[in-house]
Amino acid sequence: MDFKELANKYQTPLYVYDFDYMAAQYDELKSAFKGRKSIIAYAVKANSNLSVVKHFADMGSGADCVSIGEVRRAFLAGVPSYKIIFSGVGKSDDEIREAIEKDILYINVESEAELGRVELIAKELGKVSRISIRVNPNIDPKTHPYISTGLHDNKFGVDLNSAKRMYIKANNSEHLDPVGIHFHIGSQLTELEPIRESAEIVADLVRSLEGINIELKFFDIGGGLGIRYDNEITIKPYDYVQAILGTLTALDLTILCEPGRFLTANAGYFISKVLYEKQNGEKKFVVIDGAMNDLLRPSLYNAYHKIDVITDSKEEPRAVDIVGPVCESGDFFAKNYPLPPLNHNDLVIVNSAGAYGFGMGSNYNTRGRSAEVALESGEDRLIRKRETFEDLIALEQEFLKA
Amino acid sequence: MDFKELANKYQTPLYVYDFDYMAAQYDELKSAFKGRKSIIAYAVKANSNLSVVKHFADMGSGADCVSIGEVRRAFLAGVPSYKIIFSGVGKSDDEIREAIEKDILYINVESEAELGRVELIAKELGKVSRISIRVNPNIDPKTHPYISTGLHDNKFGVDLNSAKRMYIKANNSEHLDPVGIHFHIGSQLTELEPIRESAEIVADLVRSLEGINIELKFFDIGGGLGIRYDNEITIKPYDYVQAILGTLTALDLTILCEPGRFLTANAGYFISKVLYEKQNGEKKFVVIDGAMNDLLRPSLYNAYHKIDVITDSKEEPRAVDIVGPVCESGDFFAKNYPLPPLNHNDLVIVNSAGAYGFGMGSNYNTRGRSAEVALESGEDRLIRKRETFEDLIALEQEFLKA
Ligand SMILES: Cc1ncc(COP(=O)(O)O)c(C=O)c1O
Ligand SMILES: Cc1ncc(COP(=O)(O)O)c(C=O)c1O
Repeated sequence: MDFKELANKYQTPLYVYDFDYMAAQYDELKSAFKGRKSIIAYAVKANSNLSVVKHFADMGSGADCVSIGEVRRAFLAGVPSYKIIFSGVGKSDDEIREAIEKDILYINVESEAELGRVELIAKELGKVSRISIRVNPNIDPKTHPYISTGLHDNKFGVDLNSAKRMYIKANNSEHLDPVGIHFHIGSQLTELEPIRESAEIVADLVRSLEGINIELKFFDIGGGLGIRYDNEITIKPYDYVQAILGTLTALDLTILCEPGRFLTANAGYFISKVLYEKQNGEKKFVVIDGAMNDLLRPSLYNAYHKIDVITDSKEEPRAVDIVGPVCESGDFFAKNYPLPPLNHNDLVIVNSAGAYGFGMGSNYNTRGRSAEVALESGEDRLIRKRETFEDLIALEQEFLKA
Repeated sequence: MDFKELANKYQTPLYVYDFDYMAAQYDELKSAFKGRKSIIAYAVKANSNLSVVKHFADMGSGADCVSIGEVRRAFLAGVPSYKIIFSGVGKSDDEIREAIEKDILYINVESEAELGRVELIAKELGKVSRISIRVNPNIDPKTHPYISTGLHDNKFGVDLNSAKRMYIKANNSEHLDPVGIHFHIGSQLTELEPIRESAEIVADLVRSLEGINIELKFFDIGGGLGIRYDNEITIKPYDYVQAILGTLTALDLTILCEPGRFLTANAGYFISKVLYEKQNGEKKFVVIDGAMNDLLRPSLYNAYHKIDVITDSKEEPRAVDIVGPVCESGDFFAKNYPLPPLNHNDLVIVNSAGAYGFGMGSNYNTRGRSAEVALESGEDRLIRKRETFEDLIALEQEFLKA
């Protein structure tokens, strides 16, 4: 990948995505399900650029959405309605209405109160809403607390008893059609056992529902497959699928899988330019033109990202903090990272930036968000324009009265 | 304040700012400086809405900016060029060029390398750039590490010896005019002593520069005045100013002050609607329609915000987590907060949301940013429109090829 040329052509800071890598990841996961009825529903939140969603849609992917905005993105990108699901703990009435009207595959319900709202709204519309229930299996996924979601301490899903009660209620309702069951215990998972255990717990619930004549069609195992940021040992898709299948004996279900990070994270690079080096006492800083408003993960999760540099410098690396221009000490990309002395306009490449990168970006400090570029079969193309100052003030300028 | 009416009129989630409160805060601080040459330069980053910046400009405020975007906001809002300063650790060449061309009061320089760039660019333009140097006094401000900026461990400013060297260099340059000195040791400061100590250190440097015939005009004490989120005991503006003045004996300087949070934080309210209550095991959650994409401070800093509710519920409060719809366990506003049982569409008011609130907002999970409303002399008016789905995809839709 010629980062220098891309930086010249599109300016910095810049997000670049390797679409071929995304395709390879999709293929690897899809193959692991070979011979089983399965839908891969790309978790749009990981990287919601319309061209990215379309890239997966073109390969046959569905879409896992967590807002009506994401559902609209999926439709625009060409995902068929019968492969779109709508998850999330807090759906507004308007969102529920639109999801029912658009006749998506199902709504993933996360609480008894929500089930009530969905039923009410389906009734108002004179429709039947297909639903799935997110079960919280109370399993520790062993990941960062902010992206751990499978414990009762977390806001997600409902416990087994509530789920059963809700299935019975849904099954008795004229306006609800319970078709699926769902769990998702966390993101960046690198241990298989908590996933397998959760699947087992949820599969047992499916069997117990069959015992009372509630027959589900979809077994939705969520997303969460971890990737290599540093030197993590990750779960192999084949082992992942086998572990899940092992819990489903005697059940005839279509497996739904909602990967986000696995498909996009390592396809993405965040490219930034060196502005200056500076020294404060013992400490060395490399100040770049990208900032926490572009990529929040280091600030928010203290996340590690591998860094590469493009420089003529041949000197020995020293430990530096790589920081951005935002006026917060939390605005950093890496601390005590070994880099050689760098010059003005050298490039700093932040790896693994394709998931939860651009999407968490803001305009903090009145910084426009960067452009996004796709690389596919050796060709690069813009997939989102750089934000201008005019874009930033577009919704407030008219209110500036004299 | 009739939150219910505002929520009905403008929908939720919503930011509301009390412009009268902002004016009162400005007046209180300005009065504390009475009889001294002083400029209050509002720190635009705290709340950069154009109407907010204009509100302060109308009262005579200058603007402290940390990007060229903020400088442009200040100009649009009517701040005169001679009251605009440009700070920040990472200024790009384009930003420096525009700042010099616009002839603002001065550029706050944060490193030797930056001083070199400013000189070079001023030379190219055939101009003289007024500068100030940000000194890092290496004083612990005793605040959250992410908003602490006055230690050598932080990326901000330069140490005393470097500063002195830089002043000599600037004084000898045909294209640089050193007019000011600057320090800012952190935000949400509630202890006066670290500020006083820093001022003393910096004032000593001013005296030592006078000894070598470098005469500065502006003594820029940064921002940082803390506010009451919970039950903090805050610094009184009068004591603050007296402490600073006490360090400036025999110096004839105009004091510049860059408050952000102090002016806007407690003027702001984030209004959100209850979607559902839910229970997971022992834990109770209130799910609201606002989220971490609207207000990041609780997730990012674990910041405390006081919460009020508007409800008919007369029952006893219980400890609940107040959370949003975003698919992250980090998406919360408060944990174990005592609230009575709430109903669908009850209002949840997050207090102290006027600084570092909307400005850190994102479109994560394809959520449009909320509208912003000003309240002034009993009248409410929109100052920023709610983002629509069309706004969110405007810069990427054209690249969605068939
Ligand atoms: C319900 C659900 N599905 C899928 C995902 C995607 O997770 P990942 O990107 O780790 O695959 C998430 C992430 O938070 C989620 O909450
Ligand atoms: C240089 C500078 N000035 C002023 C401010 C405003 O700080 P506050 O909002 O705490 O007053 C900041 C905040 O980070 C800053 O970095």
